[in-house]
Amino acid sequence: MQRAIEHELDLKSLFPLSATSSATFHIADFGCSIGPTTFMSVQNIIEAVNHNNNQASTTKLPLEFQVSFNDQTNNDFNTLFRSLPAHRHDNYFAAGVPGSFYGRLFPTSSLHLGSISSSLHWISRVPGELTAAGRRDSIQCTGLDEDVARAYSGQFTRDMEAFFDARAEELVSGGLLAISALCLPAGAVLAQTGLGMIFDLLGACLVDLAELGLISEEKLKSFYLPMYYPQAEELEASITKKRCFSIRKLVKMAPPSPEKSQKLIQTSASQIRAVSEAIIKQHFKTITPDSVDLIFERLKEKLAENMHAITSPTTLHHLEVFILAKRL
Amino acid sequence: MQRAIEHELDLKSLFPLSATSSATFHIADFGCSIGPTTFMSVQNIIEAVNHNNNQASTTKLPLEFQVSFNDQTNNDFNTLFRSLPAHRHDNYFAAGVPGSFYGRLFPTSSLHLGSISSSLHWISRVPGELTAAGRRDSIQCTGLDEDVARAYSGQFTRDMEAFFDARAEELVSGGLLAISALCLPAGAVLAQTGLGMIFDLLGACLVDLAELGLISEEKLKSFYLPMYYPQAEELEASITKKRCFSIRKLVKMAPPSPEKSQKLIQTSASQIRAVSEAIIKQHFKTITPDSVDLIFERLKEKLAENMHAITSPTTLHHLEVFILAKRL
Repeated sequence: MQRAIEHELDLKSLFPLSATSSATFHIADFGCSIGPTTFMSVQNIIEAVNHNNNQASTTKLPLEFQVSFNDQTNNDFNTLFRSLPAHRHDNYFAAGVPGSFYGRLFPTSSLHLGSISSSLHWISRVPGELTAAGRRDSIQCTGLDEDVARAYSGQFTRDMEAFFDARAEELVSGGLLAISALCLPAGAVLAQTGLGMIFDLLGACLVDLAELGLISEEKLKSFYLPMYYPQAEELEASITKKRCFSIRKLVKMAPPSPEKSQKLIQTSASQIRAVSEAIIKQHFKTITPDSVDLIFERLKEKLAENMHAITSPTTLHHLEVFILAKRL
Repeated sequence: MQRAIEHELDLKSLFPLSATSSATFHIADFGCSIGPTTFMSVQNIIEAVNHNNNQASTTKLPLEFQVSFNDQTNNDFNTLFRSLPAHRHDNYFAAGVPGSFYGRLFPTSSLHLGSISSSLHWISRVPGELTAAGRRDSIQCTGLDEDVARAYSGQFTRDMEAFFDARAEELVSGGLLAISALCLPAGAVLAQTGLGMIFDLLGACLVDLAELGLISEEKLKSFYLPMYYPQAEELEASITKKRCFSIRKLVKMAPPSPEKSQKLIQTSASQIRAVSEAIIKQHFKTITPDSVDLIFERLKEKLAENMHAITSPTTLHHLEVFILAKRL
């Protein structure tokens, strides 16, 4: 990301009038969440912009940085604000911006660089046709059921259009969008991947709880995860569709293969709980705290039982796809 | 405020290049707190700016509004964000900016209008010489002790310099600062006012609790409220001192005289608790919740006993001073 930003950023054309007076470089982190990685990502971007500015053949611009941290309104901004680096003012001015990134969040032509990391697979809603039809075999888009896949893919396409339309309005001409996204390996479906298997185990835990009478069978039928992992090509097509962005850099990275270990079980269970607990509670409104705990206890058991399949050499892994797009 | 903004705002000079492309008008509310009045104040400002834009003799500017809500980092921004008007996007883009307004919060020349209401009497800290010397007769600057008054006044002067220096850097030339502040009536000291009397009753409650052994005598000696009510002239002098701002409008309003009633006792006790409870808890670290409740129960009793004096025709009342200042 740093090298791509350093290479593609043209500060002179972004700030044609600011050779002497101060210029504010506005960065937005979409889906920032909370925690140390939130600030590390921003720090990397600022270092890249400063590096680019220092290397400029002509005068160095007197840059100041405004950083806007965006996430859903129910993100814990209080904790985010209390964990902001203490001496950030030497470096950047910080703001929190609540709201869905599938809509407008900033004024027209007010952003110079947007960043979004591991967030675009969270679609804005479960496709309406799925909740109406009732559940089939899975709580997710495994790729094995064509109707389900079509519904998910359609929602993803609409969401990406909304995302890139909004960003096209917010970014200045020449502004950059740095995207890190989890994508499926070419031609693969989610069911073939380790992550898909793990989420299907979560689905099996919910079936267990329904059989124990701890959650409603009826409610389970309409439970789907609002999550869709595209092929890299689907994401690329969404970016360039309206001819507002051009892709300047695209790198597909294979994450390291998981080790089969007790630690992996604990880590996976914690990560799955972190991203799914709120969704489960919201859907199964009357679920007790004990039942929620039981879901993730069962998940650990099922992960242990299925560790062999999840870590098998024939199991596929997600790609981490990095894309740097430029607003035309 | 609306009339003053409509009269003094010169949109054409703020946005000389934006006759056709979009222009973002950036408003900041300093010390925004949370609750409906936070949004009402911003709405009033936006209406004034729109009115000014609609009245323009030449082309109307295509304005968008960015509103930044600032308060201390320990303000409850989660609640603020969850209570933002649902359809604000039709009207403005919202952000939260955590941090003390006695320092820089925004990039250089990035604000068009700042607003601060009933917040400037909260000084940044209790003057160091007072906590070192130990308390005399009051938990506040009654104005009756010259040394105490000098210490408070010195801190206020330093804080105002920090506030107006920061705003001078953040506001564009021609930008406006709308200030509503509580000030003392000319020549009066706090001890002569109803508000001063009420806060002295709070001090008497703390003395009661120390005598009951519920809070430390030693801790009580170093307890002062970080609060200073200036004469309007002190505030005016701070604004114009560095010649960065000129005062375009100044209105002194007398608030309606309080009625002597049970309701007044309840309201006063609630308001005093709202502004002082966190300060008391932070200072008397080991105080129990029951003791905190007892303070404000006692306050109600003392308010009832002293209602005659507080509402007496000879008791003075604070002025609400509105000032519109322009960044030169």
